[in-house]
Amino acid sequence: MERIPILKLGDCLIISLQIDLHDRLALAMQDDLANMVVKTGARGVLIDISGLDMVDSFIGRILGNVATLCRVLDAETVIVGMQPAVAITLVELGVTWDNVRTALNVERGMAYLRSHLDAPQAIRGASEDTHDDADAGD
Amino acid sequence: MERIPILKLGDCLIISLQIDLHDRLALAMQDDLANMVVKTGARGVLIDISGLDMVDSFIGRILGNVATLCRVLDAETVIVGMQPAVAITLVELGVTWDNVRTALNVERGMAYLRSHLDAPQAIRGASEDTHDDADAGD
Repeated sequence: MERIPILKLGDCLIISLQIDLHDRLALAMQDDLANMVVKTGARGVLIDISGLDMVDSFIGRILGNVATLCRVLDAETVIVGMQPAVAITLVELGVTWDNVRTALNVERGMAYLRSHLDAPQAIRGASEDTHDDADAGD
Repeated sequence: MERIPILKLGDCLIISLQIDLHDRLALAMQDDLANMVVKTGARGVLIDISGLDMVDSFIGRILGNVATLCRVLDAETVIVGMQPAVAITLVELGVTWDNVRTALNVERGMAYLRSHLDAPQAIRGASEDTHDDADAGD
């Protein structure tokens, strides 16, 4: 079965999208990613879409959902490597990605995740203090 | 045109193979990778093949060639994420990869590259001292 590999690097997960996300593959990716975030306790997710020449409204919505899903699981998502034509298409389609952080390339995306993860917990929201003891021993 | 994205992270390049490498795609990957190594001055290349369920002798040979190619360009290659079935197939096919370094997963591969890149130059061969001034300003 076709699956998109998820690479774990420290407390970040890296996904490189290269093939068109049809329905089942997109759902599988969401599932796999959510499971990986929970299993590994990852704090950051970096999705590289430089391999996609075209993004339609379905993929746009899926990526937005993934970002929301990761945020609910207390992981920050950055989408990197967007080609200019893809950016133009997304704007024309009305996909605004208000809740999605983007970066020009992998290095800038990782730099953002690093700075975000290194920030004091208080800045990121005090609510997580109540359920934060599980991953302290990692 | 179909291309495999190459992610730059520090002085390492990361490639995630997810689709079958047919002839033209494999040659394009070799070309792109060689150009990226020269352009970015990368010292390490990490190739993740966890997305491949099957590796035939053609892909085995291509990956061996890529490792040799990178070594000629003074970059170390590590292939990570090999599935057990793939390892069995490679051995049965007689692909020994004598010149290819492998690691179980991305983290171990990166750890190897880190330790290798941090090692003193003298260990890695004195011959590179003669043409080492080009990337000193990076």
